[in-house]
Amino acid sequence: MAVNLPPVADLLPVAGVRVGTSCAGVKQTVRDDLVVMTFAPGTRVAGVFTQSAFKAAPVIVCQRRLDGVAPRAFVINSGNANAATGERGVEDAERCCTRVAERLSVPRESVLPFSTGVIGVRLPVEKLERGIDAAVQRLADDWTPATRAIMTTDTGPKAVSRRVTIDGVDVHVTGMAKGAGMIKPDMATMLAYVATDAAVDPGCLDRMIRDSNASGFSRISIDGDTSTNDSFMLVATGAKNVAIRSTRDRGYRALKRAIGEVATELAQRIVRDGEGATKFVTVTVSGARSSREALAVAYTIAESPLVKTAMFASDPNWGRFCMAIGRAGVVGLDPARVSLHLDRVCVADSGMIAPSYTEAQGAEVMARDEFCVRVDLGRGRAEETVWTCDFSYDYVKINAEYRT
Amino acid sequence: MAVNLPPVADLLPVAGVRVGTSCAGVKQTVRDDLVVMTFAPGTRVAGVFTQSAFKAAPVIVCQRRLDGVAPRAFVINSGNANAATGERGVEDAERCCTRVAERLSVPRESVLPFSTGVIGVRLPVEKLERGIDAAVQRLADDWTPATRAIMTTDTGPKAVSRRVTIDGVDVHVTGMAKGAGMIKPDMATMLAYVATDAAVDPGCLDRMIRDSNASGFSRISIDGDTSTNDSFMLVATGAKNVAIRSTRDRGYRALKRAIGEVATELAQRIVRDGEGATKFVTVTVSGARSSREALAVAYTIAESPLVKTAMFASDPNWGRFCMAIGRAGVVGLDPARVSLHLDRVCVADSGMIAPSYTEAQGAEVMARDEFCVRVDLGRGRAEETVWTCDFSYDYVKINAEYRT
Repeated sequence: MAVNLPPVADLLPVAGVRVGTSCAGVKQTVRDDLVVMTFAPGTRVAGVFTQSAFKAAPVIVCQRRLDGVAPRAFVINSGNANAATGERGVEDAERCCTRVAERLSVPRESVLPFSTGVIGVRLPVEKLERGIDAAVQRLADDWTPATRAIMTTDTGPKAVSRRVTIDGVDVHVTGMAKGAGMIKPDMATMLAYVATDAAVDPGCLDRMIRDSNASGFSRISIDGDTSTNDSFMLVATGAKNVAIRSTRDRGYRALKRAIGEVATELAQRIVRDGEGATKFVTVTVSGARSSREALAVAYTIAESPLVKTAMFASDPNWGRFCMAIGRAGVVGLDPARVSLHLDRVCVADSGMIAPSYTEAQGAEVMARDEFCVRVDLGRGRAEETVWTCDFSYDYVKINAEYRT
Repeated sequence: MAVNLPPVADLLPVAGVRVGTSCAGVKQTVRDDLVVMTFAPGTRVAGVFTQSAFKAAPVIVCQRRLDGVAPRAFVINSGNANAATGERGVEDAERCCTRVAERLSVPRESVLPFSTGVIGVRLPVEKLERGIDAAVQRLADDWTPATRAIMTTDTGPKAVSRRVTIDGVDVHVTGMAKGAGMIKPDMATMLAYVATDAAVDPGCLDRMIRDSNASGFSRISIDGDTSTNDSFMLVATGAKNVAIRSTRDRGYRALKRAIGEVATELAQRIVRDGEGATKFVTVTVSGARSSREALAVAYTIAESPLVKTAMFASDPNWGRFCMAIGRAGVVGLDPARVSLHLDRVCVADSGMIAPSYTEAQGAEVMARDEFCVRVDLGRGRAEETVWTCDFSYDYVKINAEYRT
């Protein structure tokens, strides 16, 4: 199902990070569904969370904690989102944190909880407590088992590493993510964790997470729906002898680039594994007056059911692109200045089908499993890119049968 | 496919309105695809059009004309939208108007054009000219053939009449509409025509069209996509001896109510015939701080692919409703005050599944072919209702195969 989703290969360990998994049996008992990640003392953590007004209990707990004690562990479960569970949901999340804290002998406030799965159902805390005990027993350097344990409707794990050399020291950046539906910007993925073994000061870490979120997770949309549980965590353990103290430090740009690459790669893999996806589509809008305007048009195209079904059908339906561009809310847009390319094929120019264009050209591009939709609005210099997938029978099937 | 779409029954003729159809063969030659409507001298017309920046050529022509000469005729074709066709599209629309004007001996500026169908393809004007000649030969009181000739992917015609007695005179209101996809507010239907034989002063007519649009066509969404061609026209011929000169006139409220009922009934029928629809769903949001806020939540629910696929599956998935409510952009929403009913079943209260609720209750409601989703935000007194349908395999099928 997924569109060229690369297998997880050769993940680099991150010094100061240990990962353990177990099968708590939250929803099924076939594979691991619980992860405990631990961090060396002195680790710094930054987080970005869903914009939903219906924040899940673990998100509420994480946001309360991030201003307090330095995090020493994450506890992550799949199969149940612990969302729309009210004050009890918060208590349940706290109980999981307490168990981790006891087993690791760290303060409860240093443990951050994350959940993904069904909404509105209470967490089976006893099962999770037993799972936590087992996962703590299995803490190791290898992230690979965890990349699978955080999956829900994902067809495969998503993880990637980068290595950068800073001041002669090998610094590792490794990230993993899950998410395949309910995916939309303002935080796009359900859960993503990126860690490095460099030491990074809080100001630099904040900037790195904001920028890598903006260029990665906030540039994807599968169905325009935003989860209650979205969380992206950036972890810097400082276990290697490299410190980034200011944005002017020599290593800042190199590390920021590596983290940005990992975030973008994870974001794209989430789209490649979009529910029912058969195409991976890059939508680039240029000639806009502002980044905001470019994004508005790009997202309207990326989220239009009529455009997405045309993508599924490999149908170069210029009318649907017009429709989406037209309803994106760009005030004063002059259709006579709008052009559309599918990869290198010019479909429309000056708001009309280009004289040179043939349907066969457009259909040939859209039959590819990856292609680019390029729209120029002809009214400014701003340009933005988002990634999306098509809308297939299987999207309906997956989401109509999710709980049945 | 359609959900309880009533057959068109006993349409009342509107004095001063004549309707003729023909098969111009725009896209196929099996059924009529061209309509000419003519209006008695003195007829007043008001119109509401798509908010798209990519307005189709006929919309551009209509909007130019509505401030000028009193309209004497409409020419409507299905099979080709004459949208994204640039200046030539405007010329093509003008040529159709010219032909109608010649045949009827009225000024060209008194003829308004409307098109619906494929976007980005030039209108076959010669075919339309021959079709116009034939339709003018067949002008009659009966709207019935026209209700079919304006259809595109519609599975059946949509038309309804109301009779009101004002000052002892029988006044008729008859309307027809087409539209089954690319349906979203800010004008919802592709094409809708409502006429009465009362005389209505321009100020009253404007108010009637604004109100009936707001409560009818602007309260529906099938896929959130807005057409380039949406047009809703309200016609008052004055052929009967009843005149509405001010909003204080005795007949004003009665006529406005009849027109509003016709508009709402047509709007709901468009949803009943939504592409691939298997459910007709009323979404009511109450307890909002403003009408705008209530509508934002109602539309987010009505347009969420995850909610719509759950509707298709008859799955009372509280999590997806939470998700949609949460992402609707209501600042400061307190989830602990939100409740959800499916018809009379209380699914959630205080932001959580209600203690009394069982999945079987919710599933029983959602298995109905018509049901109501009622959300209370618990923060104000505003309430709004929109109508929508579910998202089925057939929506994908219809839209993936539309041109192939």
